Amino acid sequence: VNIAVIGASCTPYGEWWDKSLRDLLAQAQLTALEDAGLMPKDIQEIFVANMCAGQLSGQVNLGAMAADILGIHVPSTRIEGACASGALAVRAGIAALESGRAEVVMVSGVEKMTDVDHTRVTESLMSATDYETEGFVGATFPALFALVTRAYMHTYNLTREQLAQVSVKNHKHGALNPSAHFRKEISVHDVLKSSIVADPLTLLDCSPMSDGAASIILSTPDFAKKINKHDVKIIASTQACDTLALSHRKNITQFYATQQAGQQAYKQAGITPRDINLVEVHDAFSTSEIIALEDLGFFDRGTAGHEIAQGTTNLNNRLTVNASGGLKAKGHPIGASGIGQIVELMQQLRNQCGARQVHNAKIGLAHSMGGLGATVAVHILTNKE
Amino acid sequence: VNIAVIGASCTPYGEWWDKSLRDLLAQAQLTALEDAGLMPKDIQEIFVANMCAGQLSGQVNLGAMAADILGIHVPSTRIEGACASGALAVRAGIAALESGRAEVVMVSGVEKMTDVDHTRVTESLMSATDYETEGFVGATFPALFALVTRAYMHTYNLTREQLAQVSVKNHKHGALNPSAHFRKEISVHDVLKSSIVADPLTLLDCSPMSDGAASIILSTPDFAKKINKHDVKIIASTQACDTLALSHRKNITQFYATQQAGQQAYKQAGITPRDINLVEVHDAFSTSEIIALEDLGFFDRGTAGHEIAQGTTNLNNRLTVNASGGLKAKGHPIGASGIGQIVELMQQLRNQCGARQVHNAKIGLAHSMGGLGATVAVHILTNKE
Repeated sequence: VNIAVIGASCTPYGEWWDKSLRDLLAQAQLTALEDAGLMPKDIQEIFVANMCAGQLSGQVNLGAMAADILGIHVPSTRIEGACASGALAVRAGIAALESGRAEVVMVSGVEKMTDVDHTRVTESLMSATDYETEGFVGATFPALFALVTRAYMHTYNLTREQLAQVSVKNHKHGALNPSAHFRKEISVHDVLKSSIVADPLTLLDCSPMSDGAASIILSTPDFAKKINKHDVKIIASTQACDTLALSHRKNITQFYATQQAGQQAYKQAGITPRDINLVEVHDAFSTSEIIALEDLGFFDRGTAGHEIAQGTTNLNNRLTVNASGGLKAKGHPIGASGIGQIVELMQQLRNQCGARQVHNAKIGLAHSMGGLGATVAVHILTNKE
Repeated sequence: VNIAVIGASCTPYGEWWDKSLRDLLAQAQLTALEDAGLMPKDIQEIFVANMCAGQLSGQVNLGAMAADILGIHVPSTRIEGACASGALAVRAGIAALESGRAEVVMVSGVEKMTDVDHTRVTESLMSATDYETEGFVGATFPALFALVTRAYMHTYNLTREQLAQVSVKNHKHGALNPSAHFRKEISVHDVLKSSIVADPLTLLDCSPMSDGAASIILSTPDFAKKINKHDVKIIASTQACDTLALSHRKNITQFYATQQAGQQAYKQAGITPRDINLVEVHDAFSTSEIIALEDLGFFDRGTAGHEIAQGTTNLNNRLTVNASGGLKAKGHPIGASGIGQIVELMQQLRNQCGARQVHNAKIGLAHSMGGLGATVAVHILTNKE
């Protein structure tokens, strides 16, 4: 894979009650175009990631909306893979470029989650799992992740305090990110004393419901050279899946789809995990960051939680994980999240991140997960020639 | 474009209260594999089209479900473009093949619409239009199409009786299709006396809510030759879009997106409308078939309704339109519909259609529309070398 990222933009994530789905999408799309120095007519195909708008905003067919915003009539398609929707849309954009169908594509993601009844949002999130065996019987998404967390803590002797350090670290990073939903540091004590959502997970173990949008513009290497925007490129793009239902897995303390997507990504890029110095992983819950880092080969099985607690993954320590604040602190507007990760890597690799800049950022990895490890996509970006 | 269709299958469309979303998808996927003579492990990527399952069945992340059914872990992605979802998934499958990412892909579509409260289905369908200016103010999908119909009848002197002939013709064809939702002929009188849905459209002008699934297997020409399944191929695949809201159009008696997708498809295939002898068009309402046939260049503006009424588009007359029965009689399980059209063309081009076989079928066109002409995709298939 050799695809240039020539423009990138994220709206701030947060509770934007005064902005519609269309407003947020427009904001991300237009600022991404500005970042690339392109006009709407330069975009040849569009992919839009979104999970919940049908359920929460009475709006599907977002492909047409995304083109409508730009006033163009090109092919425009919505992509969905639950919380991995954004990353899957990036893959669709890459396929369009690699097929020769287009030279320049826009990949956008948007989600509007905060000004509707929370029960409806919870129901909507639950649709990412297997309805027949999980949603139907009343399981919520955090409840299923609590099972995973219990199993992991038991198997690998992870303490509740160590687990809390994931959120503490991500809030520390998020405090440095002007676009983050939550820009305040929290302590282990704060995590432990916050309301229990699904034991042992508390409110501060769970990523929030956010509004937001993100958009990137991808092109062939030739086009990027022509407009002198060839500094950052995608060198791996992979995707794998696993059973929809958690009960159909042999092991719930690791996710096979992440392992598959990770291994294939390293092979595509011709690198190993040791070559990577910044990572954005899908920390929908604190446990998911720990498991992802192990599945991706950054730490031995059962050790990532201990490493995070020791600060190994803090900004500019051995491996910076979620410099953006991650889904926990930057926020998790679902359709935007996977694309927002690529925006963060792009800005890090261009050395544009100010207080949260990873020194000497060279190769970054983004990991996005939809459902309970059911759909996973991995991207690797670099600023090396 | 040069992509082989090596397997194709449709479940019967209808009201399948005893079958779940997963059951229907499994049925289509497994019979398509059987048709291609392949095993699940031969499939390298999957695309699944669906519009309403999030809203009606509490289930998104259908990509993971589709792979789960086959017991494989390959990339699997849901594609949505309202009623054009199926056709857009076909395009995604073609891009994956053309990019070199895969040699064999499965493209499936499924919808489960009949055993939920009809009000919820109506709301869900409305999400294909612009919620802010249309759904929010209480417009329903048939109400918007009634405006289009009135404008068309007024502009081109189409009578109510002529309009009814579209449904009469499609039911005549559907009666010959063992997989059709409705297998009975109807008369102009039946159409006129059926309940008014949105004046002037009556119940028998509107396609039904159906359950069903369809699945096709696509491959590179080389792979198709290797397994000796290179008899039918896709030679054009195009997509275009228009404003989401009807009120933003300059003209509501024609659809710009269909015109664009059609013209590009003829160019890609190197043919003209005159070279085509069978067409499956998106007859969600009787008016949409008339407008599509004009937008695609088969008839002069304002004449298609008169031609249909005269029988020009009946089975084995000048141009066979909707030999399957179309969305009206074959049924309209949204996610499946666009793929079901390709299944029909495939079976026609293989001379497998029995009583509804188009004599000497050589080149077929499929037209699918999402929202009110907002998203359109066109495919052209042939059995010529």
